[in-house]
This record gives sequence, C-alpha cells and structure tokens, in this order.
Amino acid sequence: MDIKKRYFDYAATTPVHPEVIKAMRPYFDDIFGNPSSVHSFGQEAKTAITNARDSIAKVIHAKSEEIVFTSGGTEADNFTLSGVAEAMAKKGNHIITTTIEHHAVIEMCKFLEKHRGIKVTYVQVDKNGLVDPEDIIKAITSQTILISVMQANNEIGTIEPIAEIGKIAREKGIYFHTDAVQTFGSLEIDVEKLNVDLLSASAHKLYGPKGVGLLYIRKGIRILPYLHGGEQERRRRASTENVPGIVGFGKAVELAEQEKHERNEHLTKMRDKLIKGILENIDESQLNGHPTKRLPNNVNVTLKYVEGESMLLNLDLEGIAASTGSACSSGSLEPSHVLKAIGVNPEVAHSSLRFSLGRLNTDEDIDYLLGVLPRIVKNLRAMSPLYKKSK
Amino acid sequence: MDIKKRYFDYAATTPVHPEVIKAMRPYFDDIFGNPSSVHSFGQEAKTAITNARDSIAKVIHAKSEEIVFTSGGTEADNFTLSGVAEAMAKKGNHIITTTIEHHAVIEMCKFLEKHRGIKVTYVQVDKNGLVDPEDIIKAITSQTILISVMQANNEIGTIEPIAEIGKIAREKGIYFHTDAVQTFGSLEIDVEKLNVDLLSASAHKLYGPKGVGLLYIRKGIRILPYLHGGEQERRRRASTENVPGIVGFGKAVELAEQEKHERNEHLTKMRDKLIKGILENIDESQLNGHPTKRLPNNVNVTLKYVEGESMLLNLDLEGIAASTGSACSSGSLEPSHVLKAIGVNPEVAHSSLRFSLGRLNTDEDIDYLLGVLPRIVKNLRAMSPLYKKSK
Repeated sequence: MDIKKRYFDYAATTPVHPEVIKAMRPYFDDIFGNPSSVHSFGQEAKTAITNARDSIAKVIHAKSEEIVFTSGGTEADNFTLSGVAEAMAKKGNHIITTTIEHHAVIEMCKFLEKHRGIKVTYVQVDKNGLVDPEDIIKAITSQTILISVMQANNEIGTIEPIAEIGKIAREKGIYFHTDAVQTFGSLEIDVEKLNVDLLSASAHKLYGPKGVGLLYIRKGIRILPYLHGGEQERRRRASTENVPGIVGFGKAVELAEQEKHERNEHLTKMRDKLIKGILENIDESQLNGHPTKRLPNNVNVTLKYVEGESMLLNLDLEGIAASTGSACSSGSLEPSHVLKAIGVNPEVAHSSLRFSLGRLNTDEDIDYLLGVLPRIVKNLRAMSPLYKKSK
Repeated sequence: MDIKKRYFDYAATTPVHPEVIKAMRPYFDDIFGNPSSVHSFGQEAKTAITNARDSIAKVIHAKSEEIVFTSGGTEADNFTLSGVAEAMAKKGNHIITTTIEHHAVIEMCKFLEKHRGIKVTYVQVDKNGLVDPEDIIKAITSQTILISVMQANNEIGTIEPIAEIGKIAREKGIYFHTDAVQTFGSLEIDVEKLNVDLLSASAHKLYGPKGVGLLYIRKGIRILPYLHGGEQERRRRASTENVPGIVGFGKAVELAEQEKHERNEHLTKMRDKLIKGILENIDESQLNGHPTKRLPNNVNVTLKYVEGESMLLNLDLEGIAASTGSACSSGSLEPSHVLKAIGVNPEVAHSSLRFSLGRLNTDEDIDYLLGVLPRIVKNLRAMSPLYKKSK
C-alpha cells in the first residue's frame, strides 16, 4: 500500500520551487559559459549572476557588491568567523557568540579557539532561547572583534533581538554577524535596520537549490577570503561560480519576497493549530522555544517518556517526515545543544520533535498529523516503564 | 544576422551533458530531502550520494569512503594544502609545488606562507612545461610534508610525470597531491598506479554541473577539515550536501568512463589538425606546451605581434569562443604565470591563445576556425607597427 508522504521538515531543506527550476534550466547546457570568460558564452553567464546578485541585494537593502556567493550557509559562517578573526588580529582576538548557534558557527569557533588563539564567549540564553542584549554588553572586552548571533534558531524557532544587538555592536565599533539561514526569505531582512555587517544565508532553505549560499559583507568590513585562487567575486571568493545555483537562488529570493506575506500567514495559522493540537491532545507535552517570538513555521515539542528517534521512525511509517532537531547533527547521539541551553533536561531532550512547515503543507496535513501523533505517542508510552510509573 | 556559435573553451567549463541533466532532475524537487535526515526523504537523498560516491570511487580505483565531495576544484585544492599543513604541523612546515599550478594551489600556498609559517618551494618546469622528478627530489627537506603537482596543466596542456613523482613522495613518506581538474574524465586515473594520496577534481570540466567537486583522500592521511559544522562527509566536510550536483557528478564520471576512448580519439584528431593548420597557415606562430605529452583537447599557441584580447574579441564576432589562458585569471592584466614559467617572453605571452576542444566540436568547427583565424591575425598584424618592422 502506498501511503501519501507528508513533509514537515522544511527547516532541514526544501523542495526547489518549480519556477526556480525553470529559471535555472537554461544555465546547465545553453548559457553554460564560465563567467570569467571574455567571450559571449562567459558574458551571458556573468550577466545572469549579476542579475541574481542585484535582485537579492535589493531585497535586503544592500549594495550588489556587498553580496558574495558561497557554497552554502556553512561556508558563509566559516568565512565570516575565520576571515574576520584573521583580518582583525591586530585589533583583538575575542569573539562573542551564543550557546544556541548553528554548528557551522560553534564548530568554527572551537576550531579558532584551538588553532588560532581566538577566545570565544558563548553567551547563555533564557528558557525560551532568547539572547539578552545586556548579556552581550557584559561579554564585550577591549579585545572583542566580532559578535555573531543568529536571527532565529533553527531548532526551536526563537527569533533573536538582532537589531538591538547590532546597535550595541555598532556603538562599540565591533563587527556584527548574523546567521540568517532560517530567516532569509521568511522574515523581513533589511541590513540597515538590523545593523548587521555580515549575514549568512543558504538557498536550499527557501525553495532554492542546495550548494549555494551567500555572505553579505558590508562595504568597508575587513575580512580575509576563505577560498583562495581565481579572481571571482571581486577576489573575495575564488572558484568558478555555480551559475545555475546562483540564478536559482536569485529566483527563490524574488519569489519569497513576492509571496512572503501570504506564505507566513498560512504557516502561522498551521503552526498555531499544530501547537494547540499537540498540547491539548498529548499529556506531558511542552512547547520549546519562545511562544510568540517564533519563526512562522516552527513547532518544537517535548513529549515526555518517548524517544524522539522512535517517534520519527513510527511517523515515517505513516508517511510523516519530521526531525528531532537540526539535520546537520542527526548523526550525533548527543542531545541537542540548543535544548540543553534552554534548560531542557538531557533525558527529556531526547523526547523532542521538530515539525517545520512549508509552502506545500495544507490544513489537511496538520489534521492528519494531529490524528496520527497522539496515537503513536500513546503506543510508545505504553511500552515505557517510566511513563507507567509516573501515572 | 545570427552567426553560429562555436565553443573552443572546454577547459574553462563545459555544457552539462543531457544525460547528466536528466539524472539530476528528480533531485531538485522530487527526491529533495536532506541526506542527514532520518526520514525517507532524507534516506533516499543519502542513497543517491552514496551511489554517486561508489561509482566515482570505482572509476579511480579508490574506496568510497576516500571520496569527499566539495564545492569544486578550488575548495579541494585549498582543503588539501591548508588541511595537511595544519594536521602535519608537528612533522614539518615545508610544501613543494611547481610554478605552473592552478591559482587555487598557488594562491593558497602564498596564503600559507604569509599566515601560517609554511615554506613553499615552487619547482621550475622546462620549456615544454614538464616537471623533472629530479628537481622534486632536490627540493625535499626533512621538513617537507606535502608535494603538490598537477596531473596536466590547464593552460598549455602538458601532462606531468605524476606516477613517478608520487613514487618519490611515497618512498620519502611525504604526502602527494595532484590537481586532476583538467584530466578527470579524460586521462586514466588510478590512484594506486599514480601513487597519489590526495587528488582534486571538478564536475563542470567533464560535462557535469558547476558548484561540485571532490577531494580523494587516501585512507590514513592526516588532514584537518576545511569546512566546520555538521557531521556530513564523515565529519571531513560540513555543509548540506549538494545532492543534485553530486548525482550529476557521478553520472558525468560514468559517461566519461564509457565514452573516454572515443572522445579522446576524436579530440586528438581535431587537436592535431588544428595545431598543424595554425602552424602551417600563420607565420611566426608557435605551439606552447609539450608536443606529445599533451591533453587530447588542448591547443595553446603564440601568434606574435597580435594581442590575445583583440584576437578573442574578433573571434567572438565570428562566433568563436576561445581564451587567452585560464578563465580564472582572465580578470588579471598580468601575463600568464604558466607561459612565463616556460620561458615565453612576457610581451609575446600576451599574444597567446588557448583553444580547448570538447565532445560537441566537429571537424567542420576546426575547418571554420582555420578559415577565420589566419584572416583575423593578418588583419590585426596589418595594424601592428612591430609586425611591419619585422618584415
């Protein structure tokens, strides 16, 4: 029997939008030139990436030359941390970030601590995952060269007070970076209003292709390149440009900009219905992340006495794709560093699920999920001695 | 009037093979999952990259787990140099490479010299662009940790004695890397026979997509990751995998393997006809690179008394796309470092053209080019006082 598959893991990745595929298509074999080539094949490809760059820059109120295309969000994050640390070494060796950043930030920070003599302060968050700007101020030293705080958390959906933190950084003359991988194309992003100097994004989170991202670098910011070689991207990122990917990214951003309001309204309604349905129909359940300062598509819940992995497998059998947190750390047996940071007990952290909604989800999907999930939880709990004991 | 466009710049990039596009297509929106996800969407995507990895590994006689997918050749080269330099810092701080490597190697070497305390020896080549293995031996010190020599040069097409150099490195216990970006899918690559420990390749040079490459890392080689974050690629390269790109790369390698013999026979014939035609029909012309140890698709000639850029523009008007050398350095006004290395006078270096042939070129293309080029050269020389003076 074929079961209808329903996807609730849009925070992990999204299907490429049909319009994006259409936009990319000619750049594989028709307009296939290397943008660095002088001839018409090259120049047509160059025009395509210029257009994509212009349209993305416009959406985030940046200048075109402030956008550097990368291979994804990880490279953009790594580029920022490493590039600023090395370019600003004479000014200081201290970076401030938070305990709930994406691994691409945290692991790079650890690398810089171990190999580059950088000191990193990991600012704590509150029980909802919110960073307190006061804590950022307290962490600043005369050596601080960079503050990196994500715009919204990928696991629990909490939206951070980026503009405020950016303002603090600006006043202190410290560079400010935000990982906007989860928010790009969803929340409004205006690099001026947000006071950001550097911003990372990834196409595949907003119905664009995998393998392409960007780093916004405010004019005048000092940063060393991360990839060295050819003179692409104004010598800030060597490597032949991924032309179809960049074109697709541009189209995805355009579409997101046009459809943002409608998409978010739809997502918020489904999100709230799902949260309400879970909390009402499953006992000993709780929502993780901020109740209102929250991504329109994120639902993260702890369902005590059931193993997240078991729930995932059972959900998968019913055609439902969800996750226990970040896809990037699904290979790890460690409980989520984000849930740990907001004070969720490590044992209970393993009982958490993330549902992240997207443009193809329907009300009917939510109804289906709410029909299936309580039953699965009930069945799994029936096998749990701890649950029985608690009753 | 529409003129038929003819592409002679396959060394810069290639159009994606129709079969490759077909293979990639489902992975944009049908099998679109994140390979790190536990659910079926993710697992199907994971299977796809496993299959691509297996089929590429088989072609180069490697183990699947020795293949790490990257964003391209530049990242693979940077990864190697930086990753080995840092992992082997306790053993030594000396790298040997050559004066004719791709910028992705040379610029990274310069970065390591400036920022990581690495010492680099740039071994000279002979007038045909050949590296003498004896010169490699002479350059080895007790501090040498890595030797990096490209399998064939991207500008002049000279094929290097990689197996011999690899054997030397192996005997001395030094890691050996080769940049195979120009040869992958064209020359036979057997990592055992070639004695290589690390090998870089890029999909878009062999009718695969832009934005994906690989680094072969022999089991046991010590190397630090270049991208830090999630646990992808066995923790050697963080970042969500470019699934369609990797699938396309796998298909491109498969096709190249099947068609290699036929492709090369066709290319070699056209190449030799073109070289002969140019040397016979244009006076004061010379071939750059080795006359026989040469990529089957490479023609690099110096046509004295004419500016390369002027020739390119004139050729472009006639529908012919060629280059003056590496696309990656076409933004630069510097004469080619490769031509300089083989002793071409800097003034004359500016009078050089590279024609790189590919699977879609026909005999008729070569005839057309041989019909057009001498006329363009003649016209340009008619305006050159230096040429008149020489007569």
